[in-house]
Amino acid sequence: MSSSHEARQPGVHCENHRPNLDEALRLPRIAIEHTEPTLDNGRFAVKAIAGQPVTVTSSIFTDGHDQLGAALYWRADGEAGWHRQRMRFVGNDRWQAEFTPLRVARHLFVIEAWWDVYATYRHELQKKHAAGVPLSLELQEGRLHLQRAVEHGQGEVRATLEELLRRLERASHTEAVELLLSGEASAAMSAADAHPHRTYSNAFPLDVERERALFASWYELFPRSQTDDPQRHGTFRDVIARLPAIHDMGFDVLYFPPIHPIGRRFRKGRNNSLEAGPDDPGSPYAIGGEEGGHEAIHPQLGSREEFRELVAAAGEYDLEIALDFAIQCSQDHPWLKRHPGWFSWRPDGSIRYAENPPKKYQDIVNVDFYAADAVPDLWVALRDVVLGWVAEGVKIFRVDNPHTKPLPFWEWLIGDVRSKHPEVIFLSEAFTRPPMMLRLGKLGFSQSYTYFTWRNSKEELGAYFAELNEAPAKYCMRPNFFVNTPDINPVFLHNSGRAGFLIRAALAAMGSGLWGMYSGFELCEAAALPGKEEYLDSEKYEIRPRDYLAPGNIVAEIAQLNRIRRYNPALQTHLGLQLYNAWNDNILLFGKRTADLSNFVLVAVNLDPFHAQEAHFELPLWEFGLPDHAAMHGEDLMNGHRWTWHGKIQWTRLDPDYLPFGIWKLTPPH
Amino acid sequence: MSSSHEARQPGVHCENHRPNLDEALRLPRIAIEHTEPTLDNGRFAVKAIAGQPVTVTSSIFTDGHDQLGAALYWRADGEAGWHRQRMRFVGNDRWQAEFTPLRVARHLFVIEAWWDVYATYRHELQKKHAAGVPLSLELQEGRLHLQRAVEHGQGEVRATLEELLRRLERASHTEAVELLLSGEASAAMSAADAHPHRTYSNAFPLDVERERALFASWYELFPRSQTDDPQRHGTFRDVIARLPAIHDMGFDVLYFPPIHPIGRRFRKGRNNSLEAGPDDPGSPYAIGGEEGGHEAIHPQLGSREEFRELVAAAGEYDLEIALDFAIQCSQDHPWLKRHPGWFSWRPDGSIRYAENPPKKYQDIVNVDFYAADAVPDLWVALRDVVLGWVAEGVKIFRVDNPHTKPLPFWEWLIGDVRSKHPEVIFLSEAFTRPPMMLRLGKLGFSQSYTYFTWRNSKEELGAYFAELNEAPAKYCMRPNFFVNTPDINPVFLHNSGRAGFLIRAALAAMGSGLWGMYSGFELCEAAALPGKEEYLDSEKYEIRPRDYLAPGNIVAEIAQLNRIRRYNPALQTHLGLQLYNAWNDNILLFGKRTADLSNFVLVAVNLDPFHAQEAHFELPLWEFGLPDHAAMHGEDLMNGHRWTWHGKIQWTRLDPDYLPFGIWKLTPPH
Repeated sequence: MSSSHEARQPGVHCENHRPNLDEALRLPRIAIEHTEPTLDNGRFAVKAIAGQPVTVTSSIFTDGHDQLGAALYWRADGEAGWHRQRMRFVGNDRWQAEFTPLRVARHLFVIEAWWDVYATYRHELQKKHAAGVPLSLELQEGRLHLQRAVEHGQGEVRATLEELLRRLERASHTEAVELLLSGEASAAMSAADAHPHRTYSNAFPLDVERERALFASWYELFPRSQTDDPQRHGTFRDVIARLPAIHDMGFDVLYFPPIHPIGRRFRKGRNNSLEAGPDDPGSPYAIGGEEGGHEAIHPQLGSREEFRELVAAAGEYDLEIALDFAIQCSQDHPWLKRHPGWFSWRPDGSIRYAENPPKKYQDIVNVDFYAADAVPDLWVALRDVVLGWVAEGVKIFRVDNPHTKPLPFWEWLIGDVRSKHPEVIFLSEAFTRPPMMLRLGKLGFSQSYTYFTWRNSKEELGAYFAELNEAPAKYCMRPNFFVNTPDINPVFLHNSGRAGFLIRAALAAMGSGLWGMYSGFELCEAAALPGKEEYLDSEKYEIRPRDYLAPGNIVAEIAQLNRIRRYNPALQTHLGLQLYNAWNDNILLFGKRTADLSNFVLVAVNLDPFHAQEAHFELPLWEFGLPDHAAMHGEDLMNGHRWTWHGKIQWTRLDPDYLPFGIWKLTPPH
Repeated sequence: MSSSHEARQPGVHCENHRPNLDEALRLPRIAIEHTEPTLDNGRFAVKAIAGQPVTVTSSIFTDGHDQLGAALYWRADGEAGWHRQRMRFVGNDRWQAEFTPLRVARHLFVIEAWWDVYATYRHELQKKHAAGVPLSLELQEGRLHLQRAVEHGQGEVRATLEELLRRLERASHTEAVELLLSGEASAAMSAADAHPHRTYSNAFPLDVERERALFASWYELFPRSQTDDPQRHGTFRDVIARLPAIHDMGFDVLYFPPIHPIGRRFRKGRNNSLEAGPDDPGSPYAIGGEEGGHEAIHPQLGSREEFRELVAAAGEYDLEIALDFAIQCSQDHPWLKRHPGWFSWRPDGSIRYAENPPKKYQDIVNVDFYAADAVPDLWVALRDVVLGWVAEGVKIFRVDNPHTKPLPFWEWLIGDVRSKHPEVIFLSEAFTRPPMMLRLGKLGFSQSYTYFTWRNSKEELGAYFAELNEAPAKYCMRPNFFVNTPDINPVFLHNSGRAGFLIRAALAAMGSGLWGMYSGFELCEAAALPGKEEYLDSEKYEIRPRDYLAPGNIVAEIAQLNRIRRYNPALQTHLGLQLYNAWNDNILLFGKRTADLSNFVLVAVNLDPFHAQEAHFELPLWEFGLPDHAAMHGEDLMNGHRWTWHGKIQWTRLDPDYLPFGIWKLTPPH
C-alpha cells in the first residue's frame, strides 16, 4: 500500500476535538450514553408500532455520589407539545421509561438528566436520621433548599412550597424531619427544582407504523394466471373470485407482481428463452409499452375501474392489495422517448442495458438517477407513480431490488410518501450483503426479505433467528419470511415432498410476525429447472392455471397456522424468540413470548422431512420462575389437545408422515 | 410512571430528520459505517502508540454493482498536510488501510470513498474480452473516459493521459484492449479521476502516546518508609539508595503516594484511628499544611533540589517517577483560607466534609468545581499544579479517584497538559461501575486501574481478559493490573502463602503490558485488618521499614517475569490475548501473540495455591495453520529449558510448592 504526503485536504471540515477551557465549562457534567432503542446515534429512525409500548433505556452517570434525575420527552411529528415522564433508575447506571405512541407517524424522543439536589439532601437526611446523629444543621439546610426553590417555582408549586416553609417554621424537630422527608416536599421540590447541570441526549427518531407492518401474512399470485385455460388471460375479476379462498387460508396481504403494460421488444419467451413466441405474455417485470408505463394497467388484466373493484372487494375480506414497485423499464417504456436523459446511452446511440458477458439483458433497462436531466425530475416522477397507486387505495408496496437504486432516493421517497400517507408500508426485496439489507431498513423500509429461504439446518436457523432478535437488526429490519417466490424455488423443497412444505411453512409462520408464500406452495409445487433454484416453466414467462384443490395440498395446515397466529400475540412479531434445548440436531425448539409472558408458545420442528425424529427437550419452566419439578399445562394448537407436563425434561416424537412440527401453548397452573 | 403532556420544550434543538428533495440530492450515495478503531462515532479519541501500526477498517457500500475506491487521510495535530493512502477491499463490504503514526500527539483520520468509474469500466472490458464478444463500442467508451479525464487532470497526469490517447489512436484492436487494461492507464485514470459521488466519513481522533503508556511495570512505595528505623522519616535520598534494587526487579515506573505537606487538624492515627499521636505522620492523602499545598514538598522528605536529584538518579536506572494527583485537601490546606469560594460551606460557617453516617471524614475536604468562585480559577490552579510537576521532570501521574471529579474537567485538563507536553501519562484510579471507568479512558486517561484484583477464578479471569480485548474497552482502556495497593490487600492473598503471590504476579505480568505492585508484595506481606481487605498497620498512617531481603521473598521470580516481558513483544500489551482449553477448572491457559505470530507466548497458571494441578490442554497448533499432529518447539521462559511437542493434545502439571505457572514460548519448526 502506497502512502503519500500531500497538501491536498479531505473535502470535509476536520478539526481537533479537544475542548478549550470555555468549551469544557459548557460540556455536560452528566453522561448520557447507550440509549436504546436507537440506530447510529440517532441518524436513522428505529421502528415501532402504534399502540405498542416502547421501552427507552439509557446509561446516565456523573462524577461523585450525588443523586440524578432523568426524564423522557417524546412527541409525534406535528404535535405542538411534548409528552414528558420521569425515568426510573433500574440499576448499574441504567434508567428506563416506557411510552406508547398512538399515532402512525414519525416520532422523536429526547432524554433529559440533571442533578437532583433535593433527592441527594433527602437521602443524606434519611441516613443521618436513621443513624441518630444531631440534625439541626441539616434542618437549616433543608429550609434553605425550600427557600431557593421558591425563587424558581411558579404558581401552584410556589404556593405549596411557601406553605411547606410556613409549616416548617412551626414544626418540632421530629415534625421537621418528617416534613422534609415527605413525598409532598419531594414532589414540590421536584417540580420547582432548578435542575442544575441539566443535560440532553440527542433527539432520537422513531418510525411508528401500523400493525400490519409487523404482523401480516402475504400471499403472492400472478393475476393473469387466475384462469382455467392457459389461452385465456386471467383478469382482476378472476382474482376477485379467488379472494374467499385466500382469505380462508388466513392471509391478509395479497401481492401482485407488476400489473403494468409489458414491453414487446426483446420480450422473453417461456423459461426465460431469448425469443418469445407470438402468444407469449412476457415477463411483467419488463415494464412499459405503448399502453403506458408504471402508472398504467396492462389492458388484458382489466380496466382501472375493475382494479378499484378488486381493491374494494379485497378490503371486504380483510385483504390488502400490495403492488410491486420495480423501477426498471422495457425498451418500449414511454419514458425512453419522452425522457431520454433519464437513461444511459452508448457512443453509438444505443441504450445501455445490463450485461453479464456473454449474457445480455436487453429486455430491461435501468434509469440513471444522477443523470443531469434526471435530477430531480425522475425522482419526482417515481414518487408520483407511488402516490398515484396510493390514490387508488394501494397502501403496501413490495420494492424490487432496492439495493440497486441510490440510498438517498429511498430515504427521501419513503419519507415523502409517509409524510402525506403515514400508513404506507414498503417491503424491501434486497437479497444482498448484510450491511446494505440493514441500511435499507434504517432508511425506512417497513419490512425486508431475508436469508430465511437459505437457512435449513438447526444451527443456521437458530443463529439467524437469534441475530434478528439482536441490535441492530431488531431495531431496523422486520423480517418477512417468504417460503418461496417466483424467483426462488428452494433446493430444500425439490425432493422433500409434502413434509418439507409443512416444515418450511411452520418455521416461517411461527418464526416471524411476517411471512409469505407464492401461489403453488400450498400445492407443494417443486419442479425445478435442472440444477437451479428456479421453477420449471416459470410463471414469470407464461400463464399457469392451477387446480387449487389438487390432492396433497396443505391448505388446511396453512389456514390453521394463520389462525394460531391470529389468536396468539406472541406470534405476531419476530421478537421475543428464544431458543431452547432439544437433544437432537434435527429438532429445532424455540419459544415465542410476550413481554409479560401472558402468551407463551413453544414450537418444535423436525427439520428432517424423511424420518421421524425424537428428542428429550427442556420445557422452559424457569422462564416462569418455576422450579425444575413444576407442572405446566400444554395445549397442542394444531389439534386442541390439552395435557399437563410434570418436570423440566420432556420428550417428543415428530413424524413427517403425519405432522413434522408441534405448536404448544404453555400456561402455568395457578 | 406518570406521563404528562406539557408545552414545555426540551432545551435542545429537536427536529425531524427526514430529508427533503434538495437535501436528499446532497446526501452521500455511498455509505461509510462501522469504522474501526473509533469510539462513539468520533466523539472520543481511540488510543495508539507512536511507532506501532494502526489498522483502519470500514464498511463502505453503495447501490448497484459499480466499483468503489476508498482512501484514508490522516495527520498529527499541527501537521500542515495530510497523509493519504488507498484502502484495499478485504471482502464483505470491508475496506482496510494501515498506517503508523510516529509522533506522540493527537491525530485525526478520515475516510474518503468514491465511485471508481474507470475500475468499473476496466472490469467490464476484461469480462467481455475474456468472453470474446465484439468490443468496438467498449473501445470507443474507453477513449471517452480518457478524454474526460484529460479535462480534470493536471500537469504530469494530464501529459500521461494525452500520451495514452495518442497511442490509442495508432493502436490495433488488440493493442487498444491491452492499453486500456494496463496498469499505466489505471494509475493515470486513478490520479485524474473526478471521483464522482465522493463522500467522507466523520473525522476520527486518535491519541498517540509513547510506549510506556501501554507497556510499563510499576512499583509503588512510600518514600518516608525507606528507612531502617520507624522513628527516622525516610527521605528522597533514601529512595535513591533503593533505586538499583527496584531496577533489578525490572520495574520502570516508580510511583509515590502524595509527597506534599500533610495536614495536622483531624489527622488520622495508626490503623486509621480518629486520634493521632504526637509522632504519627498522618496520611499523605490529607494534602496541605502550613508548608504549602499540592505544589509543595513535605519538608521531612527533603528539599526541592533533592527531589530533582531523585528524578535524575531514577532516570539513570530507566525508572520514571510517577506522582499521585489527589485533589482533596486537608483542613490545613492553604486554599481553604486563600480561596474559600472553592469549597462548600454549611449554614453554620463550617466546611462540608465527606460523611457516611455515623462516620465522618473530617481530615479531608473536597473542592466544589462548579462553585461561582471556582470557575475557572480552581480549574486553572489544578492544571498549574500538574504543569508545575511536569516542569520538575514528572511525566506520569496516578490520579486519585477521578470518578468523583467532573468529566469535562478531565477532558480539558488532560487535553491541555498534553497539548503542551504530549508525553505526559495519566493513570486513572477509578474503582467504580464500568461505564464511568470506560468514560475516563475515553476522556484521555492513558491507563486504568481495573477489577483484576477481584478476579480470581478461571471463569472470572477468562471473561475479564476477553472483555478487555473487545470493543469498546480495547479502544479506550489500557488496564494496569495492580496485584495490591496500599488500599487493597486482596482476600485471595490472606492465606495463600508464597504460591498465591506467584500466581497473582504471573497473571498480572503476563495478562497485561501494564502491571504494578505496592512494596511488601515481594515479601508476601498479607496481614490484614480482621475481616477486611485492608492491611494491618497500614503504611498510610505510619512509617514501615522493611527487610527487603527477608527469606521467602519472590524478588527473583518478579525479576524474571519482568525480564520475560522485556524480551517478548507479545507481552507488552494486554491485546492479542486468547484463551485456550485446559481441562481443569483450576488451570487458566492463554496465549499472547503479536499480530504476525512472530512472538507467541503460552501461559498456564494453576489458580490453586494449595494443590498441584494437572491437565491435558490444547496446544494451539491451528493458530500457526498447522495440523493436529504437527510438532512445535517450546521454551520454558522461567528456566530456559527447551523441547519439542508433538500433537495438539498435551499435558502439564503445575505444583504451587515449586512454581504454580508455566510460561512457554512457542516456535513452529521450519
